Amino acid sequence: MDAYWIIEKNHPSEIHWHGVNRFYYTGKSPYQKIEIIESSFYGRCLVLDGRIQSSEKDEFIYHEALVHPALLLNPAREKKVLIMGGAEGATLREVLRYKEVQEAVMVDIDGEVVRVSKEYLPEWHQGAFEDVRTKLYIADAREFLEKTNKKFDVIISDLSEPMEGSPAVKLFTYEFYSIVKEHLAEDGIFVMQAGTTHHLKIFFHSVMYSTLRKVFKKVRSYQAYVPAYDFIWSFIFASDKIDPKEFSEEEINNLLKDKEINGLKFYDGETHKMMFSLPRHIRELIEKEERIAYDNAPLYAVED
Amino acid sequence: MDAYWIIEKNHPSEIHWHGVNRFYYTGKSPYQKIEIIESSFYGRCLVLDGRIQSSEKDEFIYHEALVHPALLLNPAREKKVLIMGGAEGATLREVLRYKEVQEAVMVDIDGEVVRVSKEYLPEWHQGAFEDVRTKLYIADAREFLEKTNKKFDVIISDLSEPMEGSPAVKLFTYEFYSIVKEHLAEDGIFVMQAGTTHHLKIFFHSVMYSTLRKVFKKVRSYQAYVPAYDFIWSFIFASDKIDPKEFSEEEINNLLKDKEINGLKFYDGETHKMMFSLPRHIRELIEKEERIAYDNAPLYAVED
Amino acid sequence: MDAYWIIEKNHPSEIHWHGVNRFYYTGKSPYQKIEIIESSFYGRCLVLDGRIQSSEKDEFIYHEALVHPALLLNPAREKKVLIMGGAEGATLREVLRYKEVQEAVMVDIDGEVVRVSKEYLPEWHQGAFEDVRTKLYIADAREFLEKTNKKFDVIISDLSEPMEGSPAVKLFTYEFYSIVKEHLAEDGIFVMQAGTTHHLKIFFHSVMYSTLRKVFKKVRSYQAYVPAYDFIWSFIFASDKIDPKEFSEEEINNLLKDKEINGLKFYDGETHKMMFSLPRHIRELIEKEERIAYDNAPLYAVED
Amino acid sequence: MDAYWIIEKNHPSEIHWHGVNRFYYTGKSPYQKIEIIESSFYGRCLVLDGRIQSSEKDEFIYHEALVHPALLLNPAREKKVLIMGGAEGATLREVLRYKEVQEAVMVDIDGEVVRVSKEYLPEWHQGAFEDVRTKLYIADAREFLEKTNKKFDVIISDLSEPMEGSPAVKLFTYEFYSIVKEHLAEDGIFVMQAGTTHHLKIFFHSVMYSTLRKVFKKVRSYQAYVPAYDFIWSFIFASDKIDPKEFSEEEINNLLKDKEINGLKFYDGETHKMMFSLPRHIRELIEKEERIAYDNAPLYAVED
Repeated sequence: MDAYWIIEKNHPSEIHWHGVNRFYYTGKSPYQKIEIIESSFYGRCLVLDGRIQSSEKDEFIYHEALVHPALLLNPAREKKVLIMGGAEGATLREVLRYKEVQEAVMVDIDGEVVRVSKEYLPEWHQGAFEDVRTKLYIADAREFLEKTNKKFDVIISDLSEPMEGSPAVKLFTYEFYSIVKEHLAEDGIFVMQAGTTHHLKIFFHSVMYSTLRKVFKKVRSYQAYVPAYDFIWSFIFASDKIDPKEFSEEEINNLLKDKEINGLKFYDGETHKMMFSLPRHIRELIEKEERIAYDNAPLYAVED
Repeated sequence: MDAYWIIEKNHPSEIHWHGVNRFYYTGKSPYQKIEIIESSFYGRCLVLDGRIQSSEKDEFIYHEALVHPALLLNPAREKKVLIMGGAEGATLREVLRYKEVQEAVMVDIDGEVVRVSKEYLPEWHQGAFEDVRTKLYIADAREFLEKTNKKFDVIISDLSEPMEGSPAVKLFTYEFYSIVKEHLAEDGIFVMQAGTTHHLKIFFHSVMYSTLRKVFKKVRSYQAYVPAYDFIWSFIFASDKIDPKEFSEEEINNLLKDKEINGLKFYDGETHKMMFSLPRHIRELIEKEERIAYDNAPLYAVED
Repeated sequence: MDAYWIIEKNHPSEIHWHGVNRFYYTGKSPYQKIEIIESSFYGRCLVLDGRIQSSEKDEFIYHEALVHPALLLNPAREKKVLIMGGAEGATLREVLRYKEVQEAVMVDIDGEVVRVSKEYLPEWHQGAFEDVRTKLYIADAREFLEKTNKKFDVIISDLSEPMEGSPAVKLFTYEFYSIVKEHLAEDGIFVMQAGTTHHLKIFFHSVMYSTLRKVFKKVRSYQAYVPAYDFIWSFIFASDKIDPKEFSEEEINNLLKDKEINGLKFYDGETHKMMFSLPRHIRELIEKEERIAYDNAPLYAVED
Repeated sequence: MDAYWIIEKNHPSEIHWHGVNRFYYTGKSPYQKIEIIESSFYGRCLVLDGRIQSSEKDEFIYHEALVHPALLLNPAREKKVLIMGGAEGATLREVLRYKEVQEAVMVDIDGEVVRVSKEYLPEWHQGAFEDVRTKLYIADAREFLEKTNKKFDVIISDLSEPMEGSPAVKLFTYEFYSIVKEHLAEDGIFVMQAGTTHHLKIFFHSVMYSTLRKVFKKVRSYQAYVPAYDFIWSFIFASDKIDPKEFSEEEINNLLKDKEINGLKFYDGETHKMMFSLPRHIRELIEKEERIAYDNAPLYAVED
């Protein structure tokens, strides 16, 4: 039996214990506790404030699911992409697979997590921070957007769901998504990680969905099973022009071929179809949600 | 904090704890320990040998996923259906939704679990055991099939994966699936629950898949996320004639309408599409599996 | 690995898990949840509100430690003894070993725990409830004492430490101990179980000690290691006349012989010496305690 | 709830979890995994191979109990003391309190634990490694003794109980204790930490006791409650001349005064009396033990 364990208390009555067989790094930034551990089952992991953020054995699922639908379906020939969060560098890695990306701007508030990831997570970033197209800013994503006139073709939110009191709270509101939209090109796409769609814990996802529907004309929930998160995981794709559900398996596979995107392990046409097809009870839960997250009435990830 | 917890050791380094707030029943049959508990999160649960078999809050996902693809796509006008296992009565409940089912034969080795389920799980069976079409046998499914000349249109395996030494071991082999096939009508369908498709724990599923491919011409893996199982869950659909992947969302929805199947919470055309679309890494893991389970070299659910 | 576990959260950061291999009884009284379980390590246990009260494998330690110093050193030739709490019947069993006991009055508020103990804990009571000297009252101990004029030679408090809101709170105060004293014969002895003397969790014990010192002239803490409680356990011996620390090993052994007390497993002269000798840091912690528990400022067992 | 926990599996059905709020050091020597952590409850701890060795909040109990009975009762005017193990330096610290100690030789096999302790556990050693009387050898204690002709007045075994395959196995046998005795002065004393005396886990202690009885004329078990070990802890005092049980409280207190031993928190005359008084069932379990540990039939600490 492992001597050390990390516990993820997903609910007062649902606790998952992961055996830890090595601690590579342990430290603290002004924003959070940071650890790089080796889980006996999932391999090397980035842990922030005691929650596994991504693991060696399945980060490909999360990062391919987050990046490829948006990057593939955005029609711009020369793309500017903004990543909010994403310190590990793996979202950046997936974005840079596209030759049409001219500029990949990454804005993360916590320079310390970026520094630690650069050193301890080489399999995640694979040199992405050194790519000439990469521009890294250590800043609050909302302040960054409020100060710039730049427009982007794709904006990706790779941020942890906000806990009460966290500065991330204002990155998950109607007002913020309106700012995001102002910085998107006309046929631009916004995509975000959006918590679990476990039907007993879906509130965060469904409120984000209803909030984005007030801002964008076409909004689609999609999901993928990322084992180290212990739950099925979800994303939201939002734009005014493009509906990812309308694309067939063949169209997705052809686009991947045309754009010379090789080496993916998780994503392709069939995976795309799977992700954007939701089971009936999940669709119903999402559609009936009426709450909207506003700056003065934000949403926290844990409600129990 | 709950005082009592049930632990599911999914791997020596991955342990999930579920808080228990009530024990309704605790006993023992010749085959297994039986408990009816109330999980603080998932409600009432049937627990066999310390493993949650199904929970009040999500049994609809598992049972609809197991039953409907096969029942809906089987072309027989008047159906005979065989359920192996399924003591809770919920698989039976879903089968009996089809008016074309003339006879629903259920064979479970453990009469004690059936008795306890009848008393403590009314929301599961909803009176299905009293339906005139139901025939219940307390028997070993393999012996039952070896002794009968009956043919069925659909055969459903709702059996726990076998542990070493369990009598269920010989219900998961090439020889047994050959016997199953002999008892299927020409266009009959066999469907089974087949463990998790978690990519690090997929061996049981993939060996069952390769074993069935030696017996049936058309074999398809499919999956659904059943939260109380802590992992994504899987099924296999096997027949000589019918490929469930060829049916479109519209065809599935039309079939449900034609057959007047109402009141489903999980399954419909979009759910069907989702279940039979697998992510790329899972397809690759399944296809490259070469092991076959034989009577003299069977498979156990836990390999660690 | 056991499938079921009972957890004892002794502190937010100190949690002990006991594997459970059988549930004999589970129910609820107006006062508490009651379970009879079989711990894999400690055998059959009485569990109230999720806390192990006593275990088959070590209840002899607790009950002998609680009863014998007081019964042995009390000089009355014909004794009346009052037990407050003690539903399992084991305290009663030890009291009845003394032929000089004429009357053993037991007052427990929870008749349901007594009923369950009678049925499921025969090794505890060993028929003590049927002894002609036993008088059992289902009542609140304080109300019982306030209504009676009876005097006792020994009064034993075998009550769980009070949690906030529990009716037991007023059985651990200066006012209550004053009532107790009024019901003691002149050379009577009061003895109580008094929580752990773990030096980081000693507050309950030390406040009881200082409270009793306001009521009795001679007060002595003593301790014994009861493994199933996970901590060293303590008791307090209070009287106006008798100091148990003054008795030598030989005197204790002679008294046991004179009174024909046979069959003890834990207690004798050397054990007596051990129990009443405290390590230096514990003595200092106890002596410097100044808090007193009053009816209007009572003490709860958990302060974190 | 703490995010990280260290688990101590004391038995397959008895598991204790300690919340960890900081990792100071994590590394590996040729002999063991070494961690310095901060337990939320017990403060800074040295952890070897996942077992807490000593904690800031209660190491004084263990180290005073181990050292003082032997150092105080040994009659030599000028003492040579040998410590086997004891890497934290706290055993050394207690030994050096005696002015009559001319030489304190410490032999620990693992230089890495010593180095880490020097850096991270200053409250333990308090500069003891720099005392001119200290001689530190990084060596196997048995090889060290076999090569030297030196005699010691007191030899202290501060070694973890051996696990199967550990090099410490041969430091807990009849043959080794015979070597120890050859290196003791005529009225010399050997003292060792000897595992728990929890009555269900006493085998290690009792076999060491019966083994030492074959080598020394006077052997006494004694115990102290060290909370972070989760169990009552034990020691054995062995010599040909001195029986620590014969000393009264007053004699112990006078010896402490004569030798000017100040600043102890745990040990004094009353503590001495407590430690050497054992409860009846423990005495019986120890006395009836007949097994002896030999080089070719050694004892491991875990038998389950």
